[in-house]
Amino acid sequence: MRATESYTGRINRKLVKKQRIIRAAAGRIPADLVLKNASYVNVFTNEICTSDIAVTEGLIVGMGEYNGTVEVDMTGKIVLPGFLDAHIHLESSLVTPSEFVKAVLPHGTTTIVTDPHEITNVMGTDGIEYMLQATEGLPVDVQFMLPSCVPATPLDEAGSRLDYRAIDSFYDHPRVQGLAEMMNFVGVIAGDEQVVEKIVAAQAHHKKIDGHAPDLLGNDLNAYIAAGVYSDHECHDLQDAISKIERGQYIMIREGTAACNLEALMPLLCEQYADRCMFCTDDKHPNDLLEKGHMDYIIKKAIRLGADPIIAVKVACHNAARYFLLNNRGAIAPGYLGDFVIINNFEDFDIQQVYKRGKLMVSDGKVEAFEIPRVEDYLVERARTTFHVDPLSAKDFADARPRGIIGMIPGEITTKDAGYAAKIDVEKDILKIAIIERHKRSHHIGIGYLQGYGLKKGAVATSISHDSHNIIVVGTSEEDMAAAANRVVDLNGGIVVWDDGKCVSQVPLTIAGIMSEEPLETVNDKLEEAKATAHDMGVVRELDPFMTLSFMALPVIPSLRITTRGVFDVTTQSYV
Amino acid sequence: MRATESYTGRINRKLVKKQRIIRAAAGRIPADLVLKNASYVNVFTNEICTSDIAVTEGLIVGMGEYNGTVEVDMTGKIVLPGFLDAHIHLESSLVTPSEFVKAVLPHGTTTIVTDPHEITNVMGTDGIEYMLQATEGLPVDVQFMLPSCVPATPLDEAGSRLDYRAIDSFYDHPRVQGLAEMMNFVGVIAGDEQVVEKIVAAQAHHKKIDGHAPDLLGNDLNAYIAAGVYSDHECHDLQDAISKIERGQYIMIREGTAACNLEALMPLLCEQYADRCMFCTDDKHPNDLLEKGHMDYIIKKAIRLGADPIIAVKVACHNAARYFLLNNRGAIAPGYLGDFVIINNFEDFDIQQVYKRGKLMVSDGKVEAFEIPRVEDYLVERARTTFHVDPLSAKDFADARPRGIIGMIPGEITTKDAGYAAKIDVEKDILKIAIIERHKRSHHIGIGYLQGYGLKKGAVATSISHDSHNIIVVGTSEEDMAAAANRVVDLNGGIVVWDDGKCVSQVPLTIAGIMSEEPLETVNDKLEEAKATAHDMGVVRELDPFMTLSFMALPVIPSLRITTRGVFDVTTQSYV
Repeated sequence: MRATESYTGRINRKLVKKQRIIRAAAGRIPADLVLKNASYVNVFTNEICTSDIAVTEGLIVGMGEYNGTVEVDMTGKIVLPGFLDAHIHLESSLVTPSEFVKAVLPHGTTTIVTDPHEITNVMGTDGIEYMLQATEGLPVDVQFMLPSCVPATPLDEAGSRLDYRAIDSFYDHPRVQGLAEMMNFVGVIAGDEQVVEKIVAAQAHHKKIDGHAPDLLGNDLNAYIAAGVYSDHECHDLQDAISKIERGQYIMIREGTAACNLEALMPLLCEQYADRCMFCTDDKHPNDLLEKGHMDYIIKKAIRLGADPIIAVKVACHNAARYFLLNNRGAIAPGYLGDFVIINNFEDFDIQQVYKRGKLMVSDGKVEAFEIPRVEDYLVERARTTFHVDPLSAKDFADARPRGIIGMIPGEITTKDAGYAAKIDVEKDILKIAIIERHKRSHHIGIGYLQGYGLKKGAVATSISHDSHNIIVVGTSEEDMAAAANRVVDLNGGIVVWDDGKCVSQVPLTIAGIMSEEPLETVNDKLEEAKATAHDMGVVRELDPFMTLSFMALPVIPSLRITTRGVFDVTTQSYV
Repeated sequence: MRATESYTGRINRKLVKKQRIIRAAAGRIPADLVLKNASYVNVFTNEICTSDIAVTEGLIVGMGEYNGTVEVDMTGKIVLPGFLDAHIHLESSLVTPSEFVKAVLPHGTTTIVTDPHEITNVMGTDGIEYMLQATEGLPVDVQFMLPSCVPATPLDEAGSRLDYRAIDSFYDHPRVQGLAEMMNFVGVIAGDEQVVEKIVAAQAHHKKIDGHAPDLLGNDLNAYIAAGVYSDHECHDLQDAISKIERGQYIMIREGTAACNLEALMPLLCEQYADRCMFCTDDKHPNDLLEKGHMDYIIKKAIRLGADPIIAVKVACHNAARYFLLNNRGAIAPGYLGDFVIINNFEDFDIQQVYKRGKLMVSDGKVEAFEIPRVEDYLVERARTTFHVDPLSAKDFADARPRGIIGMIPGEITTKDAGYAAKIDVEKDILKIAIIERHKRSHHIGIGYLQGYGLKKGAVATSISHDSHNIIVVGTSEEDMAAAANRVVDLNGGIVVWDDGKCVSQVPLTIAGIMSEEPLETVNDKLEEAKATAHDMGVVRELDPFMTLSFMALPVIPSLRITTRGVFDVTTQSYV
């Protein structure tokens, strides 16, 4: 609804549009666009049908025989409904929504459902509003689930602390579909007031509530679902997924940068279960987006692993649309959005064109120009000033007491308890690690030690550190740590590799300290260069120097983690 | 939401309830009710599962092992989700909603979706409000679709004339799911402003719009669906149904008193199509309700005709719930309503108990007492005073001019053009028929002749005449016609059989002239007696003397019909 429009005005406007749709559907006027002789996936009958597809006012008006102002011959191709990513944190692409859209549109994605969890942990509700404005009118529809866990845990010092009242008014926004992944399943099962209130409020608005409950079983799983959590995207095991489907949950089969569950969950892509499944990525990092693609990558992989192509396509579009009550997308039928992905065949799955609301947006991989949504000045400014940290010096990182050593495990984001240390010992690969609270100038600095990272000189700092996005820094000396962290603050966010008294590599992330204002390719190049630099400085080759580091602050994964109040043992739930 | 409750109060109330649900689900407190060792239909996996089913606060909280305050052993029985009638005009039962509920609850119906089309054609929006109040809190949830066609056609002189604005505020009611069957498909396809506005407004409220478009095909069907009509319940032919499913419509397979389409549509009850189908009755008359039952009758018949019992049950509960976005019913899983139908086995399908929101409401056919909803006095009074007709005399029915003869066809509601007549001729079975406008004291009386009814003496009058419910009267003399019609007015509505200067049989229908205030059995007894009397007076045995008559005023079915302005030829769309 337009802000200045009365209800009557809105009905009158929609009436005129609808009358034109009806005239075109009935064949009394030419359609805006006709895909002639199109073989398309019919998700209602699970068949390939062949006919013209007519589009007017951005909506499909009919299948049959039609004339159009624009007619495109589709002989020999296959037309699919646009794809839908059921769960993603858009921020993990490290770029703006517009850049993200340029990256995923050629891969057939026409709708995503994002949880702005990262930016909201930095900017509070300003983060939600920023993302809503930055996604308005994009040629990929960006729908929202409201972050349910800000801060992510009671231990986190995030930029904000949101109860149900704080997010409640966002449910009125037409692109908000519900409450995002309720990670605090322990809180739900315990009946924690603040947690359950959020669920109750989402239900009062008739909205969906997504889940996040790996390996939850039995009556605890019942309690989580009975509370009102309708889906799960954390299944990495078939039996886990089936026990959730049996209890009525929808399963988002996740295939992203960090977690890849498709192979384990392939048996779900059958007649018995597929209707309760959709695809999602959760997180897509720049190089992964550029190299593998997006939803098309998942569909292709599913087909390669043996899925019926029609089922794979339906899971990638229709099922998520139905789950989120986005009832005018995910199918090729009258009244549905003119979102099409044109492929050559299911074997190659080569995407030749992508249409969004009847407009050709991608042809042979090239994305048509589109208008970049305007974010209000106060939010732009707010996003660029999220660092509230006084200049740091080496003595801020000096510490006489022994501290826990977090032992990194190659290829895992879990860690081990590697004892304790009282000082840096580069020879023994004992580095100092610190988290600097950066939202509220509290000067809380948590200090510990890190083993297994491999850095031999200088320091590495980043303002991406899940989920509060404080500054995490690892160094071979307190001086380098202070300098690297100061540099992050000076940049208003980013990734910094510091050596020999200077910044040797950096990736500025000036939007809330977690996203860049530069194009995806540029960000990727800088990131790859920074990774190479860090590896050259000794960081173990098996580790992503920054992504792995960013998880060291996540106080929910065993065993040791670094927090703004010191090293925390997740297993014993105590500081060490 | 309670009228006097603030939003915060509502959240707080729901929080307390939800916390209790969670505690019971997790097994920390006993559940209110546990169905022990229950074999139940799991609509998510299409299997029979066996476990305890725990219910608390009226909702299912878990399946597994549970203790309950009340425990009921279900060994050897089958537990099904409560059934849902996707489309009915409750008024056609001729009784109040409470009486209707007493009749259908023993047959496993726990939710119905009613279109109060009949009462609204009499009372306007007061009719909608009356039905909402009369159904509040009943042990069958009564959801509403708002009448889309009041009056049913431009020819109709109904009690009201409703545009989109008139019904708009009802969309805010929590039990209103959308806009009811858009019978005026011709108007939709023509893009008629008043018709399309109603669709646009329903969509603006994110509501469903049901269809009614028998045999509509090709691009006209595309236009109807593209306009925003999501379902159809008029399919009597498989190919018609499949062409609608292909275009994204849901099919309500109708098996009611007048129209029985299940047999023809049985092939839809397979894996390919069943997910897009639900069951409905449309109209259920008293004797049909008492003799055959309700949704259980349809399921039993489907199974007898070869349907997989699990598919039949799923179509009878889950699919309609999903279509109408009644997302907490139609399945047995945590968070769903504790609506259960307990049967002995699929072959006999003998319903032994029915639970509504965890409360045992039917045991061995006996319905537990429940509170009758209170309808506000002004509405009760309004419903009892819907006849605005001055006393009639024989000269009101005298007519010198020749008029068309409506030829009845036994077993059909279509009619034929049987020429014309200038006077009654009982020997040749040429009776006089008239419609008396009764809503607005207009003294509009349409006169014509009727052949094939068989009445040999006296007159028959009824205030049920589709869809405007003016008084329809058929007689062997003008005096008897006037007397019978006057009697209907004196009763404030009903069915009257008049002979030899007196009322020989009557069925008072004092609620809007279309529903009785008496129990269903009483109404049925009176109706059967009146039918017998009419038959004894000569009415052809193959005809239902009143139901068939009530359709003679429906100016959409070929060929001749009687209207308040004379005999109308539906084929040529002109008065004769």
